[in-house]
Amino acid sequence: MRLQLLGTGAAGGVPLYGCTCPVCQAAATDDRLCRKPCCAFLEHRGETILIDAGLADVGRCLPSGDLTRILLTHYHPDHVQGLFDLRWGCNTTIPVHGPDDVEGCADLFKNPGILDFSTVMKPFHTVIFAGLKVTPVPLNHSRMTLGYCFAHDTSRLAYLCDTVGLPLFSLDFLEAWQPNHIVLDCCHPPQITPPINHNDITKAIGIAHDFPQSSLWLTHISHGLDLWLQKHAHTLPSNIRVASDGLVIR
Amino acid sequence: MRLQLLGTGAAGGVPLYGCTCPVCQAAATDDRLCRKPCCAFLEHRGETILIDAGLADVGRCLPSGDLTRILLTHYHPDHVQGLFDLRWGCNTTIPVHGPDDVEGCADLFKNPGILDFSTVMKPFHTVIFAGLKVTPVPLNHSRMTLGYCFAHDTSRLAYLCDTVGLPLFSLDFLEAWQPNHIVLDCCHPPQITPPINHNDITKAIGIAHDFPQSSLWLTHISHGLDLWLQKHAHTLPSNIRVASDGLVIR
Repeated sequence: MRLQLLGTGAAGGVPLYGCTCPVCQAAATDDRLCRKPCCAFLEHRGETILIDAGLADVGRCLPSGDLTRILLTHYHPDHVQGLFDLRWGCNTTIPVHGPDDVEGCADLFKNPGILDFSTVMKPFHTVIFAGLKVTPVPLNHSRMTLGYCFAHDTSRLAYLCDTVGLPLFSLDFLEAWQPNHIVLDCCHPPQITPPINHNDITKAIGIAHDFPQSSLWLTHISHGLDLWLQKHAHTLPSNIRVASDGLVIR
Repeated sequence: MRLQLLGTGAAGGVPLYGCTCPVCQAAATDDRLCRKPCCAFLEHRGETILIDAGLADVGRCLPSGDLTRILLTHYHPDHVQGLFDLRWGCNTTIPVHGPDDVEGCADLFKNPGILDFSTVMKPFHTVIFAGLKVTPVPLNHSRMTLGYCFAHDTSRLAYLCDTVGLPLFSLDFLEAWQPNHIVLDCCHPPQITPPINHNDITKAIGIAHDFPQSSLWLTHISHGLDLWLQKHAHTLPSNIRVASDGLVIR
């Protein structure tokens, strides 16, 4: 199982339009510091799964034939906007599995084109793709959102984005499941008031303590968190790592 | 007045995902043959107007400070998808003027960020930006859509996209107004049944005959029309020209 993080940025990405902070100024002239919309590409025995489709040029990144299916965590634009173009393609059909959100995003359900939204993912109902077990778990977000737990033999990886904290049923499942790796939404530096919709670093550290045996990779990172990390990254628990665009987890 | 066509493609663009036609195969290896989502950039005396925001990387193409305002023809995703990222920017506010479409696209109106949608454009109500007169004209499309007529001194340019044919009131206005240049939606090669939502080349030729003194630039072009043009471009009336991405009209 190989997971590549194609994008690790919060909505708006890094650099943020109009921002003059040191992080955004540096990223404006160095692609390695940029953060695109949050999404990932998972490969396992010929099965190739795009997790979220926020990259606008997803069809260029993953030409036809390179993509078995798409898993959506939820229907916010920064997680599906790459589908607006992709759907008008031809000579193929791409299954797109997401939560049972009847609204979707804009006119995607009305004009699906080559995308097949017919099979939705249900919380804790495991499905198997080419021997890979995929179990959706509910997350805490402003819209119906699922994390995905991928398992094969002794390899277990959980992709948990977008979320603030974890619902109790999902936490119980994950504690029993014991992931090797967790890719976790962590958007903000420490917040004074409890964060909504996305974890701040304080919440992420709490989750890292709940999973001491797991490597925790932070994603959905804002320029504000990047700025905070410049001074404070060394204070993080040893099982927390900061993801970057292009990172590969095996 | 200087208009640059940043994108001249139909929804899905050229090359189309998964397509193996000669046009798409050639465009896949030659950026000069690609067509991005339909949009344009107009400059006049320091006023800089983006017409439609289908380019996903619009914030990179037009950094903060380079953009006075955005005019939207309508709220289909291929004309507004660049706003999903852009809105999360900071340190600026960008007026976005479009038709009075209460639905908008996805959650743009709910979460506008730095975009100010408060001033809508009304058919035939001329507004003036830095001495440039802008008159919206209704178009025929599946969604409430406006074309824009730009005038300064003796320079008159009409941007008419997306449309199939022209509503009579708009046609009357344009015939009296006598544009020097018309940028016109022409999506398809000749269709057997009457086209809906977008012009085919037959409809565009009809409009070219209505405006013999105007240069007519075709935009919103599909791979199918590009394929047809490879054999038939020489048969077009002399006042029709085929636009390409990056083209500048003065």
